[in-house]
Amino acid sequence: MRSSTGPAPGGERPADTRFFSRRGPFPLTRIAEVAGAPLPEGLAPAKRACELRGVAPLQTATAQEVSFLDNRRYLPLLARTQAGAVILGPAFADQVPPHCTPLVCRSPYLAWSRVARLFHPGPSSRPGIHPTAVIGADVELGEGVEIGPLVVIGEGARIGAGSIIASHAAIGPHVVMGSYCRIGSHVSLSHALLGARVVLYPGARVGQDGFGFAQGPEGFESVPQLGRVLLEDDVEVGANSTIDRGSMRDTVIGAGTRIDNLVQIGHNTRLGRCCVVVSQAGIAGSTELEDFVTVAAQAGLIGHIHIGEKARIGAQCGVMSDIEAGADVIGSPAMPFREFFRNVATLRRLSRPKGEKGG
Amino acid sequence: MRSSTGPAPGGERPADTRFFSRRGPFPLTRIAEVAGAPLPEGLAPAKRACELRGVAPLQTATAQEVSFLDNRRYLPLLARTQAGAVILGPAFADQVPPHCTPLVCRSPYLAWSRVARLFHPGPSSRPGIHPTAVIGADVELGEGVEIGPLVVIGEGARIGAGSIIASHAAIGPHVVMGSYCRIGSHVSLSHALLGARVVLYPGARVGQDGFGFAQGPEGFESVPQLGRVLLEDDVEVGANSTIDRGSMRDTVIGAGTRIDNLVQIGHNTRLGRCCVVVSQAGIAGSTELEDFVTVAAQAGLIGHIHIGEKARIGAQCGVMSDIEAGADVIGSPAMPFREFFRNVATLRRLSRPKGEKGG
Amino acid sequence: MRSSTGPAPGGERPADTRFFSRRGPFPLTRIAEVAGAPLPEGLAPAKRACELRGVAPLQTATAQEVSFLDNRRYLPLLARTQAGAVILGPAFADQVPPHCTPLVCRSPYLAWSRVARLFHPGPSSRPGIHPTAVIGADVELGEGVEIGPLVVIGEGARIGAGSIIASHAAIGPHVVMGSYCRIGSHVSLSHALLGARVVLYPGARVGQDGFGFAQGPEGFESVPQLGRVLLEDDVEVGANSTIDRGSMRDTVIGAGTRIDNLVQIGHNTRLGRCCVVVSQAGIAGSTELEDFVTVAAQAGLIGHIHIGEKARIGAQCGVMSDIEAGADVIGSPAMPFREFFRNVATLRRLSRPKGEKGG
Repeated sequence: MRSSTGPAPGGERPADTRFFSRRGPFPLTRIAEVAGAPLPEGLAPAKRACELRGVAPLQTATAQEVSFLDNRRYLPLLARTQAGAVILGPAFADQVPPHCTPLVCRSPYLAWSRVARLFHPGPSSRPGIHPTAVIGADVELGEGVEIGPLVVIGEGARIGAGSIIASHAAIGPHVVMGSYCRIGSHVSLSHALLGARVVLYPGARVGQDGFGFAQGPEGFESVPQLGRVLLEDDVEVGANSTIDRGSMRDTVIGAGTRIDNLVQIGHNTRLGRCCVVVSQAGIAGSTELEDFVTVAAQAGLIGHIHIGEKARIGAQCGVMSDIEAGADVIGSPAMPFREFFRNVATLRRLSRPKGEKGG
Repeated sequence: MRSSTGPAPGGERPADTRFFSRRGPFPLTRIAEVAGAPLPEGLAPAKRACELRGVAPLQTATAQEVSFLDNRRYLPLLARTQAGAVILGPAFADQVPPHCTPLVCRSPYLAWSRVARLFHPGPSSRPGIHPTAVIGADVELGEGVEIGPLVVIGEGARIGAGSIIASHAAIGPHVVMGSYCRIGSHVSLSHALLGARVVLYPGARVGQDGFGFAQGPEGFESVPQLGRVLLEDDVEVGANSTIDRGSMRDTVIGAGTRIDNLVQIGHNTRLGRCCVVVSQAGIAGSTELEDFVTVAAQAGLIGHIHIGEKARIGAQCGVMSDIEAGADVIGSPAMPFREFFRNVATLRRLSRPKGEKGG
Repeated sequence: MRSSTGPAPGGERPADTRFFSRRGPFPLTRIAEVAGAPLPEGLAPAKRACELRGVAPLQTATAQEVSFLDNRRYLPLLARTQAGAVILGPAFADQVPPHCTPLVCRSPYLAWSRVARLFHPGPSSRPGIHPTAVIGADVELGEGVEIGPLVVIGEGARIGAGSIIASHAAIGPHVVMGSYCRIGSHVSLSHALLGARVVLYPGARVGQDGFGFAQGPEGFESVPQLGRVLLEDDVEVGANSTIDRGSMRDTVIGAGTRIDNLVQIGHNTRLGRCCVVVSQAGIAGSTELEDFVTVAAQAGLIGHIHIGEKARIGAQCGVMSDIEAGADVIGSPAMPFREFFRNVATLRRLSRPKGEKGG
């Protein structure tokens, strides 16, 4: 899961000013406060007074920048860093070189995220409706809404305050959207109710008909798909992902859930709060996930099953039946992690050509 | 396969009138006729005369609504339903509570589909060309065609009568489309000939170059992709699916075939009639599927192979060679279902730690 | 891999003139020169003087057309072909019928590609800006650029000479694009620098935020994604594929690399030169591929690993750790090809029911 580790280091400078605005500088004391890290006792006054201008990886950070370490793999870079300060966990604190101020946190990645956002708070809306947008009758736009060029909004839709709709998005009739949503370019959104701060990345498809049809005497006959899609507060849906609307009930994505790119969510599916679905995973119709479930990349879940709270489904896993809360499964068909790797070892042993040594 | 089962039950009411128009009410006799279900003998005249106003799942249906049961899993809901009538198979008929009229059918899901469509017949075209659409020279539009906002239609394209082209779709030059097609928002369609009643869901990509290139002395060199895409009558292509045009021959999707979301169809591929390809499956170039083949979710078929009629390819299956007609395969590499699950059991037995009991 | 084999034969004629322009005719001598194939010694003067009008598959080619054979599977068609000339490898040369001129090459698919391109050189730009395009301030357009209808180009973007931007594409502010790029319809492109001759197919998403967030006390918190996407010269990205921009460093795709449809490339990922990533494969964040790596369809690579030069990763492979240069792996978890198929055989043998003969 990419969310569990920080960025890998690279040579170039981040935050190209052509693409990213930057605030600051900020004093080290402010950085430490945002990071939730106490400044080291006995820190020299000159250091304490220093101002920092931005964030950068260990190998390119300057004395005016704050950096970050979360992954043991990149520890060799710490010794050589020129960074003015570094956010990291207690385990690595004693390896920070003397010219660099350690900002030690229990959740360094979270602290890093907040410090980076301090410098780069992200886009805010530039209120207004682009003259090329096509706005239907009786559309309600909240205060400060930004509607980009060539957007289409169907009649009766309601867009919450501060929301940003990027170019070429298509918002269907009567869609309801809470405040501070961000709808990416080329999104198709219909038959849906969105909470606040929902983010749809470019090309996401939300609300189209589910894959439902019956075998008739002369071919398949489509079954009307009469449900909606509900995206609760703070849901994010990745680029080119697809979420079908329900057939007789709604497809529901719980508050805070994060869906990566190219994910498929079938009709009537329910995801709980703060689930994570990594790229190219698929969840078939009417399956239910409780809160805090993780589905890793390219995993597939068949329809009509139930996944318990905090279950973790591994990459490429094929889930064909219910999974208990807290379980950690992988393989196709899904099995506990330990069993999967035991199977791998057994099979390797059994098929080793005679005379070859074990590895 | 999601098409084989009906909707799972849910608490909320379907067919939010903001999103779905509704016809009716209809008398029970009409419902029974559409369902192809005989009314029970000796049905009380008051019941026979009753009018129904819509469809709903078992747990929320009222006495004025018709409901549905197809999956044994949801049988407990039947006993408690308040529905006025319920469509179901003969096996469950004797469990219908007395206040509810059973409509017993051999194909309950099909019957349900038709009854639901009676109440909710779906969108019909609102003829006309939106003033923001960009229509090329010599485009032919059939009677009653609806062209949405910001659609682009290339020169010489022909759009059949009653077709609906949603916002932001791009129809390439000289594309031919039969009558009553529905093209979703943000579809890209080029180098293609479509039959009647073809449905492309939002973001489908049809007709772009296939992935063909040769290794040259200084890198890859693209091979011209000179074929087309033919989508026969009643083909449906899901959201964000991709169908490449052929290189030297056409890519052909047979009549009535249903393709779900995020599916990849490589160049020169041939699918027969009434195939089903579930989401995130991929079919590589030049592979041929006979009629009525099912490819489940996330399955992958390599190129240049042949899949016999009515073969069923399981979820996540990896097909590396021809499959016989009627075969039922799963696993990677693909093998018969029985063999796959025998393998799973064998491996579990062999790698069980000593002293642990069999499960 | 579809690139390694030529087109499968089919009945219909390629290069429908509604969709493809054609140049020619060209004399056989010119064809042979482009193919890099010597004309057979002692070729009759009448044959040598003949003119060819196009390319076609073996079974439909006429005496005025040149055809191609690369795959032993289609050898029976060679005996019956009516083609005037055929491009093929030395192994098949003695099976060419007498009325057909063999054009024998060491790299027949490459030769074929060049000959096909001679007749069908592909689209060239029709310089100009469609009046419905929305062009931001300070955009720089090179000579001969074609901007299609309803394109949006953000402020400060630079589009290289001869580039073609198809309808509905969205080019973000300050994007830089080299010369002769082709951007397909509905592409979203932001935070990116492109070399020359980069091709993005319809619906590709390049430059959106990576999937990065930290667990906070009240849910996930997004980590600012401050890197860019660099697409070097001659990179191609398939339809509906997604390439996230980096978090602290850039996502980089090396020169000449080809990415198929529906592929996911995570943030900070590095691909070397002339890699091939086939459809529906996924590469998680911060993983690095050296040059000439092949990733087959539906394979998945976890994050933070390293793949050596010329490694070949099989279809549906699940790669959880570094792969050495030149390795050939398949399976999930990934293992050498030979080991994978030995495992398959072992398991089949061990789970064969008693009394059943080996197959």
